[in-house]
Amino acid sequence: MYLSPRANYPHHWLMSVSTLTPDARVATRTEAPPPAQPADSRPLYRQLADQYRRAIDNGVLRPGDRMPSMRAFMQRHGVSLATATESYRTLERAALIEARPRAGYFVRVRQTAALPAATEPDLAAVPGAAQFVGIHSAISTIVSTFQRYPDALNLGGATASPDLYPTDALQKSALRALRRRPTLLTAAGHDQGDPELRAIIARRALDAGIQIGADDVIMTHGGIEAVNLALRAVAQPGDTVAVESPCFFGLLQALESLGLRALEIPASPTTGLAVEALAFALQTHPDIKAVVAVPNLQNPLGSVMPDSHKARLVELCARAGIPLIEDDPYRELADTAQPLRSLKAWDTDGTVIHCTSFNKTLAPGMRVGWINGGRWHPRIGMLKFAQSRHNEQLSQVVLAEFLETNAYERHLRRLRDRLRIQRERMAEAIAASFPDGTRFTPPGGGMFFWIELPRDVSSAAFFEAALDDGIRVMPGTVFSNAGRFDHFIRLSCPSTDLDQADDAVRRLGRLAGRRGAYARTL
Amino acid sequence: MYLSPRANYPHHWLMSVSTLTPDARVATRTEAPPPAQPADSRPLYRQLADQYRRAIDNGVLRPGDRMPSMRAFMQRHGVSLATATESYRTLERAALIEARPRAGYFVRVRQTAALPAATEPDLAAVPGAAQFVGIHSAISTIVSTFQRYPDALNLGGATASPDLYPTDALQKSALRALRRRPTLLTAAGHDQGDPELRAIIARRALDAGIQIGADDVIMTHGGIEAVNLALRAVAQPGDTVAVESPCFFGLLQALESLGLRALEIPASPTTGLAVEALAFALQTHPDIKAVVAVPNLQNPLGSVMPDSHKARLVELCARAGIPLIEDDPYRELADTAQPLRSLKAWDTDGTVIHCTSFNKTLAPGMRVGWINGGRWHPRIGMLKFAQSRHNEQLSQVVLAEFLETNAYERHLRRLRDRLRIQRERMAEAIAASFPDGTRFTPPGGGMFFWIELPRDVSSAAFFEAALDDGIRVMPGTVFSNAGRFDHFIRLSCPSTDLDQADDAVRRLGRLAGRRGAYARTL
Repeated sequence: MYLSPRANYPHHWLMSVSTLTPDARVATRTEAPPPAQPADSRPLYRQLADQYRRAIDNGVLRPGDRMPSMRAFMQRHGVSLATATESYRTLERAALIEARPRAGYFVRVRQTAALPAATEPDLAAVPGAAQFVGIHSAISTIVSTFQRYPDALNLGGATASPDLYPTDALQKSALRALRRRPTLLTAAGHDQGDPELRAIIARRALDAGIQIGADDVIMTHGGIEAVNLALRAVAQPGDTVAVESPCFFGLLQALESLGLRALEIPASPTTGLAVEALAFALQTHPDIKAVVAVPNLQNPLGSVMPDSHKARLVELCARAGIPLIEDDPYRELADTAQPLRSLKAWDTDGTVIHCTSFNKTLAPGMRVGWINGGRWHPRIGMLKFAQSRHNEQLSQVVLAEFLETNAYERHLRRLRDRLRIQRERMAEAIAASFPDGTRFTPPGGGMFFWIELPRDVSSAAFFEAALDDGIRVMPGTVFSNAGRFDHFIRLSCPSTDLDQADDAVRRLGRLAGRRGAYARTL
Repeated sequence: MYLSPRANYPHHWLMSVSTLTPDARVATRTEAPPPAQPADSRPLYRQLADQYRRAIDNGVLRPGDRMPSMRAFMQRHGVSLATATESYRTLERAALIEARPRAGYFVRVRQTAALPAATEPDLAAVPGAAQFVGIHSAISTIVSTFQRYPDALNLGGATASPDLYPTDALQKSALRALRRRPTLLTAAGHDQGDPELRAIIARRALDAGIQIGADDVIMTHGGIEAVNLALRAVAQPGDTVAVESPCFFGLLQALESLGLRALEIPASPTTGLAVEALAFALQTHPDIKAVVAVPNLQNPLGSVMPDSHKARLVELCARAGIPLIEDDPYRELADTAQPLRSLKAWDTDGTVIHCTSFNKTLAPGMRVGWINGGRWHPRIGMLKFAQSRHNEQLSQVVLAEFLETNAYERHLRRLRDRLRIQRERMAEAIAASFPDGTRFTPPGGGMFFWIELPRDVSSAAFFEAALDDGIRVMPGTVFSNAGRFDHFIRLSCPSTDLDQADDAVRRLGRLAGRRGAYARTL
């Protein structure tokens, strides 16, 4: 159980820890700290905690390393006991350090190495024929089964726990916006979306390596409308679209609803879309009309494409003259020192259609996404207007305020911290409780676990058994139109009640151990 | 200029009007008034005004008839002077009666008979080939031309003047909703839309003669998304869809964006879609995959299909097994004693897909529409989910409150009154100022005037000249893919400043009189 440090380690205990020699590597890093930036108005304890966080993230401090004692910390940074205590508490809450009774604080050891990494796809396999998609009825069955168990703990969703989103701040912002602009509900908005918001989005896109102006942004009803518009702009019914395998079922549903064929290209659990496999497929399937990729924290894999892969993918599509549709809603949930870049950052000739949203990062209830259509931007503007006109204004005004102040960045930092803690606890529980033969690769951000169960487990049967036990999981069957992942499940971080999640994962692990009950015909 | 009755006719003047014999026909109607309904909690003056309004609408009181004197009115209805005055004031504000100095009040004479009615279409003409639509670039040109004249008075729009929508009440409702349900922005909503709202909509649909349940309603991003979903559910690219001619350009854009062909069926300025012409077309074009109709207050015609035509149209489509897509956003803006019925009211086997929205009646900024998909309802549910997921929640909650209280009905009554006054003033100005050879049929509700200019006038050139004179009009060119209405314009009620609108229409009339300047090659 996670108690606050105050409850576990009262001040007198912190005081009694003997002074230890500060770790040499940290000392090196912190001896000459960079001058405090004048703009950094955050409390001192948070600045110090961030400094140590970076040291841990960068590997300067390694798992198991001893942290300086409180006294050493106070002396080194010239801070009070209260500041030192709060710094450590912040790091402990972020699951970066842990206290060991009568020994002091240590950089936390993550126990996820206990399970082997997920299987890498066979890149030498010749891709099969592109298939029309028929996934919707399977998904409808799952949804209606879910509805029969309304009280089940939801490890099957695709958003973070509701209490990780800034409900109060968004509510206040919306109230302010409505008071300031009473006609927000009555007056029609701008066709492409709120001009002020689009200007802010264009500025912020630099963070992802994307250079665009406000007119290059069209607001959409969530990221899914953006992806639909992109597909409609470049493909006709019957056309073939290359997608990652596995890929998120919303994309498969979009392909199905548009009458498009899916050609599944293997994706690695660590590095995402296998660019070489795509290059091969472009030769065997010259009729591919578009490629769709989720480069950052892919759903369900959690994989991140290395920059070199991103560059090669964009170049490959540009050379082949094939539009590359990038769906990038998870980018800002990565635990990296530098922001991840989007595929669009490597785009020089408008090959990349960039789609993203704030549904995953800020508010699942605000249906705000955006698209830059590259070469197809005017056509996408036409399609958006013909399909649903402009977005509602209120969410856009609220979002603009969040992005323009630092409220969004503050929220993102907190969200990433909380998700990381959840992921680490869940990863430990998976490693400790799932049976031999289970494989998975802990992701570097986001909220998904893509778990490979022993090959004879049917995830569809496992899904039913888990629901009977009060837990929603998403069976691997819906992440491929070609039936490739029937023994996989996707779990997501469900709740900020870590003990509840921990307990649920351990129960799932025990269920998976009774694998005979869910055997499938191989 | 419209002054309030108080300013024109102070109490002492009203008192001095000699008592006149009450009009016999009104006396007949009001001698034995129906017992006041216990549910009618409206002020007495409003109930009385409504009674007289009905007498005028039904022709019991005719234009030019003298109204009873104040004293007679007080005696007949047993009311105070204040109530009598307020009743007359209400009728005068609604432009139903007018005062003539030293003579009393009279039922207002409408002067729209001065221009001949719009030309009825030639129903014997054989329909041409169905055409792929190419209207978008023409519309884009118009929109960008509009933008060069940002200060022009807008008689080219498709919504009422912003001040006719209940901005304050909607704002207050939204503030209440946000305070009561802080998670409205953060939590994801129900896939089909807010269940409470859908239940209310289903109940209210009885008003249009439609019998459905909450599950038969899917909320959409405005009516246009509903129409798009309906088209996608029943037609594939290349298919032929029968549409009214003229029809609103948003439908033509949707057809264009979906790669569908339009077959234009003549529509009458008074009775809308010519059902016999459609029956003929179904024989000559056996490949028609869907029919789209706006039965009530068609855009741009303002026509209303008689019930008998509606019944025949539904029967015709049902017998031919062709889906009938009904777009019905203007129904509640009709000035009829009984609510108009939707085509769906005659549907017995799921042939009719009913689409509508609250964008025109309640708030252009709230993108709230809904669809009942008839036989195609499950497929439309799938398409909506795949395309844009659920609508945002806030607008739905606000709308539910408006519909559930009588706020919506109160607003509609006021909106209809105001639009009628605007239409009557505009019709008079058109009749008085447009040149010989102009024809039009004043509509029985809504906000559109479809004006047939002399045949040698190019509406595209007229549109440019009007903009130069500071007025936006919509040229007839965009209401047909077959170039049928190049000498028509659509005007809409632009503003509650009636004098401004009057002046603008008269300037347009003078412009049209200089027709040589906009001559087209015939």
